[in-house]
Amino acid sequence: MNITAFIGSTREYSNSEMLADLVLKGIPYQNLYIKNLNIQPIHDLRHSKNGFKFIDDDYDQVIQAFLTSDIVIFTTPIYWYSMSGIMKNMVDRLSHAIRDERFPQLKEKLQTTEAIVLAVGGDDPKIKGLPMIQQFQYIFDFLKMPFTSYIIGEANRPGEITKDEHALTQATLLNKQLIARIKT
Amino acid sequence: MNITAFIGSTREYSNSEMLADLVLKGIPYQNLYIKNLNIQPIHDLRHSKNGFKFIDDDYDQVIQAFLTSDIVIFTTPIYWYSMSGIMKNMVDRLSHAIRDERFPQLKEKLQTTEAIVLAVGGDDPKIKGLPMIQQFQYIFDFLKMPFTSYIIGEANRPGEITKDEHALTQATLLNKQLIARIKT
Amino acid sequence: MNITAFIGSTREYSNSEMLADLVLKGIPYQNLYIKNLNIQPIHDLRHSKNGFKFIDDDYDQVIQAFLTSDIVIFTTPIYWYSMSGIMKNMVDRLSHAIRDERFPQLKEKLQTTEAIVLAVGGDDPKIKGLPMIQQFQYIFDFLKMPFTSYIIGEANRPGEITKDEHALTQATLLNKQLIARIKT
Amino acid sequence: MNITAFIGSTREYSNSEMLADLVLKGIPYQNLYIKNLNIQPIHDLRHSKNGFKFIDDDYDQVIQAFLTSDIVIFTTPIYWYSMSGIMKNMVDRLSHAIRDERFPQLKEKLQTTEAIVLAVGGDDPKIKGLPMIQQFQYIFDFLKMPFTSYIIGEANRPGEITKDEHALTQATLLNKQLIARIKT
Repeated sequence: MNITAFIGSTREYSNSEMLADLVLKGIPYQNLYIKNLNIQPIHDLRHSKNGFKFIDDDYDQVIQAFLTSDIVIFTTPIYWYSMSGIMKNMVDRLSHAIRDERFPQLKEKLQTTEAIVLAVGGDDPKIKGLPMIQQFQYIFDFLKMPFTSYIIGEANRPGEITKDEHALTQATLLNKQLIARIKT
Repeated sequence: MNITAFIGSTREYSNSEMLADLVLKGIPYQNLYIKNLNIQPIHDLRHSKNGFKFIDDDYDQVIQAFLTSDIVIFTTPIYWYSMSGIMKNMVDRLSHAIRDERFPQLKEKLQTTEAIVLAVGGDDPKIKGLPMIQQFQYIFDFLKMPFTSYIIGEANRPGEITKDEHALTQATLLNKQLIARIKT
Repeated sequence: MNITAFIGSTREYSNSEMLADLVLKGIPYQNLYIKNLNIQPIHDLRHSKNGFKFIDDDYDQVIQAFLTSDIVIFTTPIYWYSMSGIMKNMVDRLSHAIRDERFPQLKEKLQTTEAIVLAVGGDDPKIKGLPMIQQFQYIFDFLKMPFTSYIIGEANRPGEITKDEHALTQATLLNKQLIARIKT
Repeated sequence: MNITAFIGSTREYSNSEMLADLVLKGIPYQNLYIKNLNIQPIHDLRHSKNGFKFIDDDYDQVIQAFLTSDIVIFTTPIYWYSMSGIMKNMVDRLSHAIRDERFPQLKEKLQTTEAIVLAVGGDDPKIKGLPMIQQFQYIFDFLKMPFTSYIIGEANRPGEITKDEHALTQATLLNKQLIARIKT
């Protein structure tokens, strides 16, 4: 089972990344640090005569992660009540990617790629993060990706996620469930 | 009355921009095209010893727009059920801006800066765009900016917004109300 | 074209009912005043051996309205950020109705019954009423009913809806659109 | 510490009630079964000359529960993506109760009454139940009640909640936290 965690934070070892580590403890996986990738914003050319133009940046790494993973984990701090801007730019580019002739298999592949969301915020995230969860649902619905679980953690200062017992408990359970699936 | 429309689209004369034009017909205002600005993503250093570092890009133009406008209009296509990534990066940077010592007056100024949202989407936006509206509400609540109105339009192909009678009607009414306020 | 407005208010000539009147001006329709009907709450017996039991109340009038209408309009005050309790009880009973052997055609009929929502609230309804709209969407999705439009009005005191220009404008437009459809 | 669980189900020993039992295991509390109470729907007379009229039903039991509890637990099945109609009628009547001259202390008392929501649904409740959570938040915000936690469980058939490990884990943790608070 291949797993990729897209890391949407701009901090070193952010609270959301720590949460992903807990969920994936003892499980082989790769992190893709969005902040380290050069990802251009989408240029919406869906309706222009020649369609999208080739963009020479690191986005192919994102596409490869989607193509080779059984599970992708959108790991993001909650900035201003939704995913970070760098993760949003990554998501926006999917409009181009699913039309990219170089990856004709992407659209179908996504339909069996399981999505998990791990998000950590500081301002009442278990309430104010809910519209973001609804948006992820719409995104995964559109792509027909199965959205199997999400965890919202609360933290402000670096490392503070370790005090959110509810998030930790859910992360531990999700970890146990993933390990059980790997073994079978 | 100074008005700035932040334009979050990546298309030339996008449907959302056309909606802003209607809302602001006959009213002096400036457009700020986010796609033409060099805006770095936030680097979240709220909790690092030295705080945020100076970023040498075009974001000061955004701050100046906030400082000099009575009304700011967040004009955005709905990409993947929320504001465009380039607008999200602009919003994310507010975390830095409201702590920027060069603009000590920004935080207070925002509390009297009226916010309007104009958003146009193609996939059932009047339902699936609602989480985005809730997020804008949380953003403006946090900043204590009065959020006075929003219009969600439906369109896919360039120019198609002109067929959304409900959005046009609301734009026309909002235009009338703004003109009435200018005159008094 | 048969139209039924379900009136969920408990006031005489409520703001929400006034809004329905505007939307339906010059169009034949019937009002069904939920407050005047004896509607028992659902008794959830989906999983009991004998299924639902016949309930001797006025709910058949609701079912008949669904069976004979091309458009149904859920007209409700926003009480505590969602539809009124009496309307909710009416909706809850649909779980029974769509399994009622006396009305085998109901479930299929609903799939061509257009739904409209008109809601009026006093506490920032254009924001705080949005979760209710999302719930109506889920309800209509489940029943496969086309959900064609909604209007949220703001009013507190009796009659105050007449001051909400945005709601009035949308009601007038919807009225025009309905009349155009009747004529063709 | 006094705790009341408002039980909004219409089934015997429903999944949501089972969840409440787990959360409250080993803790003294009372259940208030809404289905066993005679609660009239609100008659909205806020704006009539004489205000609300005395209603001779069982609602005083609800008010007494609020007045004597440190924590109230809204325990509800998710019917049509929100709380059950009988619970909604109970909530609607708060508009009357907080204006009832017989209970002048109610409004202030609520501001120190902690609210917890336990909800169980069958149709993707961890996504489609989120608008309901947002509504509870608005309700508790209006009443200034601290909203300290919620658990959404998934279950259809009677007893099925015991298979939702995520809900059980959260219930166990919440139980532990409540017991710890009682001891101190």
